[in-house]
Amino acid sequence: MWTLRLSEIARLVGGELIGGHDPELTGVAGLAEAGARDLSFLAAGKRPAAADSSNAGALIVGRKVVVDKPSVQVDDPYRAFARVLAEVQIDLDRVFPAGIHPTAIIAPDADVTQAAAIGPYCVVGSGATIGRGTRLGAQVTIGCEVVVGEDCLVYPQVVIREGCRLGRAVIVHAGVVLGSDGFGYLPGPSGMEKVPQVGIVSVADNVEIGAGATIDRATTGTTLIGSGTKIDNLVQIAHNVRLGQGCAVSAQTGIAGSCVVEDGVIFGGQAGVGDHIRIGEGAQIGGQAGVVGDLGAGSRVFGTPSQDVKDSFRTAAAARRVPALLETVRELKKRMARLEEQLAEAGDTGSPPIEDQEN
Amino acid sequence: MWTLRLSEIARLVGGELIGGHDPELTGVAGLAEAGARDLSFLAAGKRPAAADSSNAGALIVGRKVVVDKPSVQVDDPYRAFARVLAEVQIDLDRVFPAGIHPTAIIAPDADVTQAAAIGPYCVVGSGATIGRGTRLGAQVTIGCEVVVGEDCLVYPQVVIREGCRLGRAVIVHAGVVLGSDGFGYLPGPSGMEKVPQVGIVSVADNVEIGAGATIDRATTGTTLIGSGTKIDNLVQIAHNVRLGQGCAVSAQTGIAGSCVVEDGVIFGGQAGVGDHIRIGEGAQIGGQAGVVGDLGAGSRVFGTPSQDVKDSFRTAAAARRVPALLETVRELKKRMARLEEQLAEAGDTGSPPIEDQEN
Amino acid sequence: MWTLRLSEIARLVGGELIGGHDPELTGVAGLAEAGARDLSFLAAGKRPAAADSSNAGALIVGRKVVVDKPSVQVDDPYRAFARVLAEVQIDLDRVFPAGIHPTAIIAPDADVTQAAAIGPYCVVGSGATIGRGTRLGAQVTIGCEVVVGEDCLVYPQVVIREGCRLGRAVIVHAGVVLGSDGFGYLPGPSGMEKVPQVGIVSVADNVEIGAGATIDRATTGTTLIGSGTKIDNLVQIAHNVRLGQGCAVSAQTGIAGSCVVEDGVIFGGQAGVGDHIRIGEGAQIGGQAGVVGDLGAGSRVFGTPSQDVKDSFRTAAAARRVPALLETVRELKKRMARLEEQLAEAGDTGSPPIEDQEN
Repeated sequence: MWTLRLSEIARLVGGELIGGHDPELTGVAGLAEAGARDLSFLAAGKRPAAADSSNAGALIVGRKVVVDKPSVQVDDPYRAFARVLAEVQIDLDRVFPAGIHPTAIIAPDADVTQAAAIGPYCVVGSGATIGRGTRLGAQVTIGCEVVVGEDCLVYPQVVIREGCRLGRAVIVHAGVVLGSDGFGYLPGPSGMEKVPQVGIVSVADNVEIGAGATIDRATTGTTLIGSGTKIDNLVQIAHNVRLGQGCAVSAQTGIAGSCVVEDGVIFGGQAGVGDHIRIGEGAQIGGQAGVVGDLGAGSRVFGTPSQDVKDSFRTAAAARRVPALLETVRELKKRMARLEEQLAEAGDTGSPPIEDQEN
Repeated sequence: MWTLRLSEIARLVGGELIGGHDPELTGVAGLAEAGARDLSFLAAGKRPAAADSSNAGALIVGRKVVVDKPSVQVDDPYRAFARVLAEVQIDLDRVFPAGIHPTAIIAPDADVTQAAAIGPYCVVGSGATIGRGTRLGAQVTIGCEVVVGEDCLVYPQVVIREGCRLGRAVIVHAGVVLGSDGFGYLPGPSGMEKVPQVGIVSVADNVEIGAGATIDRATTGTTLIGSGTKIDNLVQIAHNVRLGQGCAVSAQTGIAGSCVVEDGVIFGGQAGVGDHIRIGEGAQIGGQAGVVGDLGAGSRVFGTPSQDVKDSFRTAAAARRVPALLETVRELKKRMARLEEQLAEAGDTGSPPIEDQEN
Repeated sequence: MWTLRLSEIARLVGGELIGGHDPELTGVAGLAEAGARDLSFLAAGKRPAAADSSNAGALIVGRKVVVDKPSVQVDDPYRAFARVLAEVQIDLDRVFPAGIHPTAIIAPDADVTQAAAIGPYCVVGSGATIGRGTRLGAQVTIGCEVVVGEDCLVYPQVVIREGCRLGRAVIVHAGVVLGSDGFGYLPGPSGMEKVPQVGIVSVADNVEIGAGATIDRATTGTTLIGSGTKIDNLVQIAHNVRLGQGCAVSAQTGIAGSCVVEDGVIFGGQAGVGDHIRIGEGAQIGGQAGVVGDLGAGSRVFGTPSQDVKDSFRTAAAARRVPALLETVRELKKRMARLEEQLAEAGDTGSPPIEDQEN
């Protein structure tokens, strides 16, 4: 439970207190849900009237925006609100109680001395290193030779398999599996034979990986997640993928083996990319799109197989007109036949029969 | 191992024993798989002859349905069969042995005194409450301040993060993550900056959540799952979604941030819904459909982007005729050109050249 | 860390050492990533020149293929390379330290005496049996009456629920849930009523199941995974599915209830199959395809609803031409009207008005 006066919030976000009141606030909420002791915000560009029906006790608003409630004017209301969220969010020490829990099983040659928290029932394998300030929640499994960097948060029930590496300030949500075997087989006399997967997963700094996501280790070498990339829940990244920096991969997207995704690529939810495909910098892949070939930098695609988004929408719109088009063409054929018949009856052109001229 | 006489089953389901025999049964099975000591059922509307080739020892059948095996006649055979399944299913005390396992780590200020079972290696955080009769399987992580209601079943290896709330009689299957952070970022000078996710997930009564599903906490406020809603495996529900009562969400469906889904909506498998979309009461979303805009109550949609199901099927059927249509039109163009040429040769209309009249 | 001379590798794979040198190698890598002490390979059919720019210390190549580096000639370079991977991969004893960890909780009537490894914090339920040579990683939950065969690998944080059965040499990756309840309900007066799921999952020999995959138990009877079938990450297999032998199911695919998939069927990623569908032997289902009806043996399909792959590509290609086609037909209509007008003006055919003769 926290309490902040609006004047304190103004100082925190570098904004200007407007309205002469300085209410005490104990919660944060969206406009529609906020109550009398909640801080809310009016997003940039929204009409001030949108705040009228809110019961919020105070608002963060844009510069020069005037509302009928105590408010703080800032340049970027949502950013300022996010700053307040950071201030009032639950203390990490409550979510990841500090220290190495006595039930954690740490291999004698693992190095966890700098870690801020190792939760109950964690298992840290031989030769693993957990960086300074990093926190592991309950029941996390760290394989042998894993290196986790500084200031990471690893939520409960994550598995990081042998040899994988995380940079600094990586956030790994509950249920994630890093370093599972790639899906690689060779046909053999008695069926598919497993190709051993001896590579690793390497996750750069400031990456966040959503709940239940899976990232396979490389067959040889490294499955790479570039710095600052954000991966949502239940995403699948296959072996030997190289995902660039600053990408955003929405939930349930799947990227197949050996793809190269350059920096700043954005994936909508449930998108899929076939194997060995290269996606150029800054491309945007629509939700549920299925990418079956390389995409240039800045591409914007949609659909399966994916097309340029404008072509895709034009194609989709045109497709809805095909039932009527079929009718139209059927009618045209009849009218055509009728005309041909009329001309043939007229019999005055000297041309050979029409059919014979078609190929 | 259980044994039931067919007469006991008749009493259990309120049916009428037919055939003069009262066999002892030890199993339940579908018609095709059933053996001589198995009870099976003939679904309503199926021809009695469908039972002839079954080796079942006895059948539950509809009223007035006569088969060549000992049977019990009831109004609704599948419902009666389900009633028998409930009778013969494995005892919960075997799946969730009663009591608080000595290895469970319960925070001193958590309240688990009414719980029926807390499995081995569970971790229950500070301030959490587990309701009367509720059972937690092995290795469940309950975050601080979580409230789990009465008579819930939480299967092994579930994570419920800080502050989330479950009603009564909620079933949470293995591998589920409730309350993971929403996927929210702001663009910043050095890339995407995380928006702290300070809300919760609230799950109402009688909800069931399938294995490996993930439900994100709200940015502020509540991600809400309405009472009686059933969620299948590997479903993703994003932050601030409000899912109504009595919805059915099939496997691998994804619902993006801030969607409002009204009561009784049914999702086929692998469906996707874009963010901030409202889906009206009783809508039906086809498998793999991609919903990109609001849907009215009772909508039935299919495809990506989703269309009304009839339009979608008509469009899809028409699309398959386009290759032939292209041919037809090519041919019509030739015939048209030929006719125009003939008429021009005839030279007797006095009209200007046709090309000049087109736009 | 390992070291192998190229001559040892030649012996291992039954190949011929070429080039007169016998370098010592300490790593394996793809052509592009390989360094001076790495072994790489030139895939069959690739031009020898592709090896020129590689920094690999040695290569496995095809018979008669000559490159500018020490090499071993074999019939099938990738297969030989995979053989080397198997030789150099991390020792299983490091990933799954041998023996029954003292923190594992084994029910008194469970049989784990033949197991090679039971990891820390595993829970093995009453009546369960773990086969000879089988290894369980950390924090695995084995339900009561489960039977796991010989020589299986079960990675950390897997849940196998009561009564399920695994054959021999099954590999189960981290985060998998086997035997979760099927998604079965009956409409009742107060909403959906759960149909108890009393069946099991049975997994045959040599199956591999990817990270985070979920396989539901049958309502009655068995959800069946045939021998040699390989299942990728985050796949969902619903209750009562019968999946044949030697199938390959790529990531995030979902197969709905009671489907029968015959032997050797291949699924691309994110494919979906509706319930009660039969897919014939050797069928190939494209990525993101949505199968809505039975498929014959050897079918190759794509799209949603899925079509024969050739038809699908032809349809998709044709669809992209519809916007232009709409233009063409609009133009044809104008030309047609013009011709009809010309002929009517000519007025010499004696036919009734054209409109009356249509349709």
